[in-house]
Amino acid sequence: MPTSGSTTDPRALITDLAAAIGARHTRTDEDTLAPFLVDERRRYHGAALAVVSPADTVDVATVVRLCGAAGVAVVPQGGNTGLCGGATPLSDVPSVVLSLRRMREIRRIDRLGRTITVGAGATVAEVAGTAAEAGLLFPLSFGAEASAQIGGALSTNAGGTNVLRYGSARALTLGLEVVLADGSVARLGRGLRKDNTGYDLKHLFVGGEGTLGVICEATLALFPPARQRATAMATLSGGRPPAPATGSPATGAPESDGAASAAGAGAGLEVLGRLLDASDGRVSACEWLSPTTRRLACAQPGGARDPFGPGAESLLLVELTSGQAGEDLRRLLEEVLGDALADGLIGDATVADGSAAAERLWQVREAAAEKRAGGSIKHDIAVVPARTPDFLAQATAAVEAILAGVRVNAFGHLGDGNIHFNLLAPPGADPHVLFDSEDLLTGAVFDVTESLGGSFSAEHGIGQRWRGELARRKPPAALDLMHRIKAALDPAGVLNPGKVL
Amino acid sequence: MPTSGSTTDPRALITDLAAAIGARHTRTDEDTLAPFLVDERRRYHGAALAVVSPADTVDVATVVRLCGAAGVAVVPQGGNTGLCGGATPLSDVPSVVLSLRRMREIRRIDRLGRTITVGAGATVAEVAGTAAEAGLLFPLSFGAEASAQIGGALSTNAGGTNVLRYGSARALTLGLEVVLADGSVARLGRGLRKDNTGYDLKHLFVGGEGTLGVICEATLALFPPARQRATAMATLSGGRPPAPATGSPATGAPESDGAASAAGAGAGLEVLGRLLDASDGRVSACEWLSPTTRRLACAQPGGARDPFGPGAESLLLVELTSGQAGEDLRRLLEEVLGDALADGLIGDATVADGSAAAERLWQVREAAAEKRAGGSIKHDIAVVPARTPDFLAQATAAVEAILAGVRVNAFGHLGDGNIHFNLLAPPGADPHVLFDSEDLLTGAVFDVTESLGGSFSAEHGIGQRWRGELARRKPPAALDLMHRIKAALDPAGVLNPGKVL
Repeated sequence: MPTSGSTTDPRALITDLAAAIGARHTRTDEDTLAPFLVDERRRYHGAALAVVSPADTVDVATVVRLCGAAGVAVVPQGGNTGLCGGATPLSDVPSVVLSLRRMREIRRIDRLGRTITVGAGATVAEVAGTAAEAGLLFPLSFGAEASAQIGGALSTNAGGTNVLRYGSARALTLGLEVVLADGSVARLGRGLRKDNTGYDLKHLFVGGEGTLGVICEATLALFPPARQRATAMATLSGGRPPAPATGSPATGAPESDGAASAAGAGAGLEVLGRLLDASDGRVSACEWLSPTTRRLACAQPGGARDPFGPGAESLLLVELTSGQAGEDLRRLLEEVLGDALADGLIGDATVADGSAAAERLWQVREAAAEKRAGGSIKHDIAVVPARTPDFLAQATAAVEAILAGVRVNAFGHLGDGNIHFNLLAPPGADPHVLFDSEDLLTGAVFDVTESLGGSFSAEHGIGQRWRGELARRKPPAALDLMHRIKAALDPAGVLNPGKVL
Repeated sequence: MPTSGSTTDPRALITDLAAAIGARHTRTDEDTLAPFLVDERRRYHGAALAVVSPADTVDVATVVRLCGAAGVAVVPQGGNTGLCGGATPLSDVPSVVLSLRRMREIRRIDRLGRTITVGAGATVAEVAGTAAEAGLLFPLSFGAEASAQIGGALSTNAGGTNVLRYGSARALTLGLEVVLADGSVARLGRGLRKDNTGYDLKHLFVGGEGTLGVICEATLALFPPARQRATAMATLSGGRPPAPATGSPATGAPESDGAASAAGAGAGLEVLGRLLDASDGRVSACEWLSPTTRRLACAQPGGARDPFGPGAESLLLVELTSGQAGEDLRRLLEEVLGDALADGLIGDATVADGSAAAERLWQVREAAAEKRAGGSIKHDIAVVPARTPDFLAQATAAVEAILAGVRVNAFGHLGDGNIHFNLLAPPGADPHVLFDSEDLLTGAVFDVTESLGGSFSAEHGIGQRWRGELARRKPPAALDLMHRIKAALDPAGVLNPGKVL
């Protein structure tokens, strides 16, 4: 997209960028560049002419304009915590990494309107911390929140553990300032709760992964703070052998991993339904761990401790929160779990006594997401909640048919139908046997997901990783629409090429 | 956008439509056409070659394709209750009205996932009624809900009285089936709570007013039902003369309408903040009536009754709802209002004793929105809540400077910063004096709104009515983006031309 004063010499571009943004913030030396050219998990490696760190939106616009004129790609990068390579430049496309890290200013808090306006480079944890100081809650919360930046969190429509109650990043976005591919600046939404003056364009950039524009500033929704919290963990009845169907072997046959997971998830959904109903929807987290995940998460000496000791059932972690002072959330939780116990949905339960005990329950969930020796193949799927048991049974059977003994480390946000269906090599096997079958295994998991009307990327996005899957699995009319939008907004392909589409 | 078999003869088009959709559902006679050519308030009048009523999405696609091939515009129409002429065809563009009324099937309810899937022609009230039968809440609620259809409510991103707690129509939309301008069918979202496989395109069609595609089916979010409800009305301290500032006249000078409204709204916002805080955000409605609106609403013999008798203060109507059984919402409301009374924020308050009493309080709010003899100039603006008092003071002063004695019938959704700022002729004056100054008055109201960073159409949309204002007031970068999207999705301008853009 050449503009006036266009140039095609990369050295000239660097000179222009340094003149505009400052030499200190336009770096080309290998050591400085290195961390920007690889993702946090070291799965994606790329190359760049420079990394530039603009001070403000005007700077960002200048960078995009200069790069566009030079025919050089702009790759926006926040905290670099993404899981799909969306912020890593390609190796074979001349690129500049645009780091938003200097634009971390908290611009303002509107206590009456319950909003916060921040630069894209502020971390998710900083935003939540500033909101908390003002007596308000910013609910977005996920593993990488300490280093993930708001711009990246919005660009990937981040999810996490509070989506059930507060929605994904998208639901929290009331306004954006975006630099477009031609270097123009669009303010979309103004922190208003209602604005029907034309198309709601901000939703193109939330989840757009930097391919349609660069998010520079955001106005985000805040909520009354959680003044009390009740957290519990329970074993789900899925560990028991199911009642034998006519013609099936008598009792005693060990239940398959998939069947146990499916039954556990089904029981967990029933408990969740009761909790939502009893608490007026104030369930802020409903996390589920399969039997295998439970075992793995609590296997490390000195790591997370299984509150029930070793067992073959799935685990459910639920948390209620309220900003209301006089309520007894703990009693409510105990009542619902007591009934669930009486009805055989859960086998055992513990309600955390104080925040340290709650923290210990959360450690079990967090341990589920930890890196495993030898590596794993990660999938982040979603189906409508009612289909979760079918998904678990069918997907487990499908991967077991491809690689006997494969371990399914499945856990996730049960209330959203969002399962992290991660695969590990069979016990004792060389990890290569797993990765040798990666395409087959992933294809099988996604085929099951698709047949159940689900999503093959619920919260992690597309990036580089799932670009082929998107082209293959997205319904043609929707995919064609995406291409038309990309062509309309970035005809020269300046912004984050090779990602998403 | 001519396709194969294209034709330019309107008679041939009607023959083709009748063959495809059925002659019974392809009407060209004047009597049948008439109600489709004028909006409910009889402000906009247009012409059409025919009104067609397809049975399903395939039919809709056929209609769009045939019309596109013939160079005839398609004007989607739901319940025809819009306020901006968005569903009325133009007079000077060959058009076919596409009525969705036959596509009213409730397709399915997912109790576990808390969603409902419906045809675009189902009314808002039908959807809410079906959800209620299944023990769930569909919270979208506004004056025209009995005849407004879901397709139109989503296409205009309808708001109403429950937005504060549950969001606008957009926030409730989990999936759409849309027919595009080329007759292709896109399924966007599948009722999933999480899906990050590419751009979230459904948000282009929610609030797109039928200019980008025709919504044929929607999957919508449901919530736990409200099992208890506490409703109260209070007078806001804005009716008292403010403390005289140094140098201002001593006491006794009557406070201006704008100053009283501003002070009342400010007090109302403070009460709302306390209620949100105390109730964990479970305020489902927070409606405000200016002193003038209060007077007008309760002036009709046999109409709404002012619970406090005549008075010069603004009124606040608040409602808390909960799906939780054991709570005492009434006590909570009484406590907050008691403190507000002690702090001088409110002058008097009444908490409804039972649903009949609550209904009587709502009648006051509903009377505020009734048609006024002689007509009014309606404005539907939004600012961030903290700016509401400024807006009321400045906008009232601005219109009084243009037309002495003009009556400001201002009321609305205080919690969203959304004020219906409607103007009536001075008492006893010919209504023409009002409408003769319409452009000046509206320009002044919108100038104030714009200077406060607000929206000139908070929930009613653009349609035909505010097209000029959009072109004039939308920031150029955002407007240019809208044009690019429209050109990318509907290059030939088949869908609802002359609306929005």
